Amino acid sequence: MDNELINSILSSVGSTDTDMPAEEGPIRSNLTEFIGTGTGDTIGLVIANLDYHIRESIDLAPQYRSIGIVSSRTGGAPHVMAADEAVKATNTIIKSVEFCRDTKGGAGHGSTIIFASEDVADSRRAVEVMLSVLDRQFMNVYGNDAGHIELHASARASYALEAGFGAPVGKAFGITVGAPAAIGMLMADAALKTADVDLVSYSSPQVGTCYSNEIIITFSGDSGAVRQAVDAAGEVGMSLLGSMGSRPQPTIPHDDK
Amino acid sequence: MDNELINSILSSVGSTDTDMPAEEGPIRSNLTEFIGTGTGDTIGLVIANLDYHIRESIDLAPQYRSIGIVSSRTGGAPHVMAADEAVKATNTIIKSVEFCRDTKGGAGHGSTIIFASEDVADSRRAVEVMLSVLDRQFMNVYGNDAGHIELHASARASYALEAGFGAPVGKAFGITVGAPAAIGMLMADAALKTADVDLVSYSSPQVGTCYSNEIIITFSGDSGAVRQAVDAAGEVGMSLLGSMGSRPQPTIPHDDK
Amino acid sequence: MDNELINSILSSVGSTDTDMPAEEGPIRSNLTEFIGTGTGDTIGLVIANLDYHIRESIDLAPQYRSIGIVSSRTGGAPHVMAADEAVKATNTIIKSVEFCRDTKGGAGHGSTIIFASEDVADSRRAVEVMLSVLDRQFMNVYGNDAGHIELHASARASYALEAGFGAPVGKAFGITVGAPAAIGMLMADAALKTADVDLVSYSSPQVGTCYSNEIIITFSGDSGAVRQAVDAAGEVGMSLLGSMGSRPQPTIPHDDK
Repeated sequence: MDNELINSILSSVGSTDTDMPAEEGPIRSNLTEFIGTGTGDTIGLVIANLDYHIRESIDLAPQYRSIGIVSSRTGGAPHVMAADEAVKATNTIIKSVEFCRDTKGGAGHGSTIIFASEDVADSRRAVEVMLSVLDRQFMNVYGNDAGHIELHASARASYALEAGFGAPVGKAFGITVGAPAAIGMLMADAALKTADVDLVSYSSPQVGTCYSNEIIITFSGDSGAVRQAVDAAGEVGMSLLGSMGSRPQPTIPHDDK
Repeated sequence: MDNELINSILSSVGSTDTDMPAEEGPIRSNLTEFIGTGTGDTIGLVIANLDYHIRESIDLAPQYRSIGIVSSRTGGAPHVMAADEAVKATNTIIKSVEFCRDTKGGAGHGSTIIFASEDVADSRRAVEVMLSVLDRQFMNVYGNDAGHIELHASARASYALEAGFGAPVGKAFGITVGAPAAIGMLMADAALKTADVDLVSYSSPQVGTCYSNEIIITFSGDSGAVRQAVDAAGEVGMSLLGSMGSRPQPTIPHDDK
Repeated sequence: MDNELINSILSSVGSTDTDMPAEEGPIRSNLTEFIGTGTGDTIGLVIANLDYHIRESIDLAPQYRSIGIVSSRTGGAPHVMAADEAVKATNTIIKSVEFCRDTKGGAGHGSTIIFASEDVADSRRAVEVMLSVLDRQFMNVYGNDAGHIELHASARASYALEAGFGAPVGKAFGITVGAPAAIGMLMADAALKTADVDLVSYSSPQVGTCYSNEIIITFSGDSGAVRQAVDAAGEVGMSLLGSMGSRPQPTIPHDDK
């Protein structure tokens, strides 16, 4: 379904890896389950026929023989945003979105997302799409030594954003994240005062996060309002985080030009 | 209320920042909400008129239009101790104390504390007081590469210590922290055996902390007994932590003499 | 009980520390409660007569006057495996096994294990045995900058493995750990497909861990099958983790030859 979208996404970014000189880098695993790696110490894998006991442990219905699984050391929202693009573009479901506290995530989260499908080709494709768009989603994360902020907007949320953040499917959806948490509070306040959006969730260190040092809000509304709210939060967040250290920079670690 | 106390506190420490050469340091945010930064990657902010939806999310009564919010990457108990001084000295309430697990906190916590007030000037003052006394409270944290210990005593606990650690308001109150956790256990044992104090709480990695690597006890009693218990814990903690690495030092990163 | 086993274990590894030049190293605490330190920022302590209030806090029966307590900044399963050897070899019980999220643990856990006994000599011995076998257990942890895998097998599980991971006492028991979590999933799938073992537990970032970036399974069965399952998981894990960085190495930080 929607192969054109997939192909256009893949072709626009697919050549990045092959340009890298291979010297001393990691060795591509030759397991058939290995799909690829990405920003934020991300790895994408697939299992054609998941073991029955694990299927039971994760409560996956029998018709879904295959899963795609993507884990990151750094990055929660960018991965959910990327997975959302992948689930739209492929014949898969989102089985689960789990966040974790990771020493590589600074004040924030790592994540693990499981796609499931009847045919392994679909899970494989979902992981490929997710990895291919991940760098673009990471562009919405800015950081310095003191913390980070995130500014995400989707014109139309799908099942990964629903599973990860409770997004109403089909509507425009925004996420603002600020760390340390006080910055996230002012970003939230600015976002909600600026534009007429509906607050979907409010998370703080001990409610709705894995004890991360963040205040995160999500909201939906019309596409323009969501964009406006995210932009207002961004202005506040950049100024405050900058007051704690150097000017916040995109956290994506390489420039692939 | 009690302006003299505030002014004497502020005047005794207020000149520290202006002595610093400004070269290459962070840029002070020009947002009116920005109050200041402090030890432990701490930032203090104020919102004059908190957005209605956020007020509902954090369950704050309507008469409190304003909040002060202080977050740290490193430091839980020192921040609660400092907030306790601030709430005593200002016309504010403590809305919440939240701890988090933060990669900058080593084996311990970061924290987010929210003051609330009817008039924004009060929240602003509370944040100012808290930031101004924070360095003094941080002097009670000692660390080395292997872990850290904390030794806090208040002659009269107020609402921040109540919100953060269950302290009985108005009584002397002590906190001992040891990380890794086994050190905290011996400190606790020494504290309680040494002086006639009442155990208020016992926290370990999976009970009462955010899975931090600490054993933390809090206790109340008469002021002398609390001091004695904290000192006994300190002697044990310094010896044990020293056996894992170099001699524990105050963790406050700068000497402002 | 079983003094020969203890002595043979202790004598085989006991000389490691004394070979180290003492210059600038940590100073051995002279508290009678201090037993020793170990790999993973581990410290082992003993309390001859635990304070009554702490005993109540941790819900320890009155006949157990003494405890041994071992905490680590890095390492969960190796410590439980080592404690399992110690509880088999001494007249102690396992009071608790607690894991924590620690910045030194990378994507994984630190841990705190409490032994208890009627006679302090038994708790002391348990801690000594545990520290003495810890390095051997750490040999089953492999890591690189991107994550780590663990491959543990016990021919006969005892009370520490029961307390920490739900092991059926007396049966062969295996543990596989992969971080980031997606690697743990493929290791689990390989383990369970390879050998006829019974799945005991499946843990992921938000279920059964402290929000760590791991998928962990445990299983029991006959000794050969457990070994086979662990080996299959190891092959998959080494290949996938190697694809994210350099070739995974044993994480034990020193070579004591």
